[in-house]
Amino acid sequence: MKSIRHLISLAGALLAATTPLSAESPPIALVVHGGSGVLSADRMTPELRVAYYESLDEALLAGHTVLTRGGSSVDAIVAAITILEDSPLFNAGRGAAFTRTGTNELDASIMRGQDLEAGGVSAVKYVKNPILAARVVMEDTPHVLVTADGALELAIREELELRPPSYFWTERRWNSLQERIKRNIEYGGRLTSALDPATGRLDSEYYGTVGAVALDQAGNIAAGTSTGGRTMKMPGRVGDSPIIGAATYANNATAGISTTGLGEVHMVICSAHTVSALMEMKGLDVQAALDEVICKRLVDAGGGGGAIAIDGNGDVAMSYSDDGMYRGFVQNDGARHIFIYDEQEVAPE
Amino acid sequence: MKSIRHLISLAGALLAATTPLSAESPPIALVVHGGSGVLSADRMTPELRVAYYESLDEALLAGHTVLTRGGSSVDAIVAAITILEDSPLFNAGRGAAFTRTGTNELDASIMRGQDLEAGGVSAVKYVKNPILAARVVMEDTPHVLVTADGALELAIREELELRPPSYFWTERRWNSLQERIKRNIEYGGRLTSALDPATGRLDSEYYGTVGAVALDQAGNIAAGTSTGGRTMKMPGRVGDSPIIGAATYANNATAGISTTGLGEVHMVICSAHTVSALMEMKGLDVQAALDEVICKRLVDAGGGGGAIAIDGNGDVAMSYSDDGMYRGFVQNDGARHIFIYDEQEVAPE
Repeated sequence: MKSIRHLISLAGALLAATTPLSAESPPIALVVHGGSGVLSADRMTPELRVAYYESLDEALLAGHTVLTRGGSSVDAIVAAITILEDSPLFNAGRGAAFTRTGTNELDASIMRGQDLEAGGVSAVKYVKNPILAARVVMEDTPHVLVTADGALELAIREELELRPPSYFWTERRWNSLQERIKRNIEYGGRLTSALDPATGRLDSEYYGTVGAVALDQAGNIAAGTSTGGRTMKMPGRVGDSPIIGAATYANNATAGISTTGLGEVHMVICSAHTVSALMEMKGLDVQAALDEVICKRLVDAGGGGGAIAIDGNGDVAMSYSDDGMYRGFVQNDGARHIFIYDEQEVAPE
Repeated sequence: MKSIRHLISLAGALLAATTPLSAESPPIALVVHGGSGVLSADRMTPELRVAYYESLDEALLAGHTVLTRGGSSVDAIVAAITILEDSPLFNAGRGAAFTRTGTNELDASIMRGQDLEAGGVSAVKYVKNPILAARVVMEDTPHVLVTADGALELAIREELELRPPSYFWTERRWNSLQERIKRNIEYGGRLTSALDPATGRLDSEYYGTVGAVALDQAGNIAAGTSTGGRTMKMPGRVGDSPIIGAATYANNATAGISTTGLGEVHMVICSAHTVSALMEMKGLDVQAALDEVICKRLVDAGGGGGAIAIDGNGDVAMSYSDDGMYRGFVQNDGARHIFIYDEQEVAPE
């Protein structure tokens, strides 16, 4: 499954790897996801696999470089998430899904664990990197969430990069919308969820998210999430990604968390906050708490998806209930581990 | 402090009281709040006190009537909240606070405890009763939160009542905005929070919310919250009121909760969901869980405000960290108990 291009790219990445931190250094860690809505194995080509690998690897490298240089976890996750937003592969930023009226409305949030400061934007158009707008809300306003035109105004005021609709147009997401509209007509307009009516399972083409969580040398955790939302969503629909406690949560005393999957279910079970609460109130470790929420509570509530997390020791947790999740992590030694399905990590043997 | 008009109104309310349920009936309960941002005692006139009393009483009577007739907790809280939204006294619906550009942008959410279904609208204009729009999102869409113009479109499609800006204009809230703008200029544009710069305390004139929680004869809990948000907020600012887990949560296994106060802090500590989590994971009763969140965690995080809750037994809890909270409750016996400050309930002696 590995192409020549993949190997070349990997060699380049290894050359570009940052110096690993020494064993005496405080723990650092970065984990990223590109959504649990992975392409089914029959639609995943070797070329696409390499492309996903490269984007995840680039995101990990960028964030890890920040951390090894003593940068903050907020800077690290922003570095990682902007790379995933800029890639047309993921349903966030450039590769955003379309609403039923053919527009792209973007959601994102960010939170830092040392003081519970947080920010988010919902249903914002034209902003190239919604995670940067979320950061502006966190750092430069007294608010936690700013929506729609208000978020756009804020982005304009802060001179964030804007892009016209054509920038966000990708053939893949446009085709998904057309397919979904066609099927909705077949189903008499009742095709409202992301479930495939034929199989009763989640159809991964219709949703997706990117996210990152990091622990920096100062011991501070940050988490962030960004998405274009669900294909054929109602204009103005806000998913879990901009909601603190649903998709994103960070508390130095517990963990940083970023989720992906069926946003509406994450919202009603408060997935990210429940992970933190299970650690605080029940003493679960980060992987056990993540598994309890993603593999049990989320599924019991009719949802599906995945999540990533890091605790204060730099322990990394990843969990998903779907077929896979684009994901990867890096810790002090600088080795970047990348996965898509249940199998071994994506890397040359 | 009681006026003749108050006594007459109370007599009328007693005459209109619904038949109390018998002791064998399943427990029912309704609790409402009109915000923890109460007028300071020196600004509270006897006339205003009566007006607040009457609105809260009317809301309790309407909701209790639904419950005694076997109606659902969702119908009961909607009946109560629409009355509070229609009153110009409370910062929700008609009495909504103004954004810094002089517009009214409304937030609301609703959740039911038997299946965790939920709905909310954020930053929506012109909708007379945002709680009805939140209910439409819960019952008639696959989504949990719809924002801004998308929420307005939904309201138009569902033929909800719309009102022009003049309907939402009240002299009191307009004067609050003008005062706040003036003070902001004095403070060089840095007056961003709801804290009074002179006292360092929350200024109750600048925020407020309404909410209700009910338990019906079928044993189902519902909770809802509605607000105009914070005076001089940035256009597009979304507070805690439309956020499931922040201001509103309902789970038959724990409780229904509605909060009020500094929305941004409720959002980052996930106040409503934390109450539910403390009951589920730590075995706290509803009053202890509410006190832990409102009097400890909220204050520790730099916030202030209040909350109401009902558990599956029909036990009612109310808690606040400010000077008071417009609030009241009614249970099986039909007696309506109404409070504003710490003192005895507002009623004829």
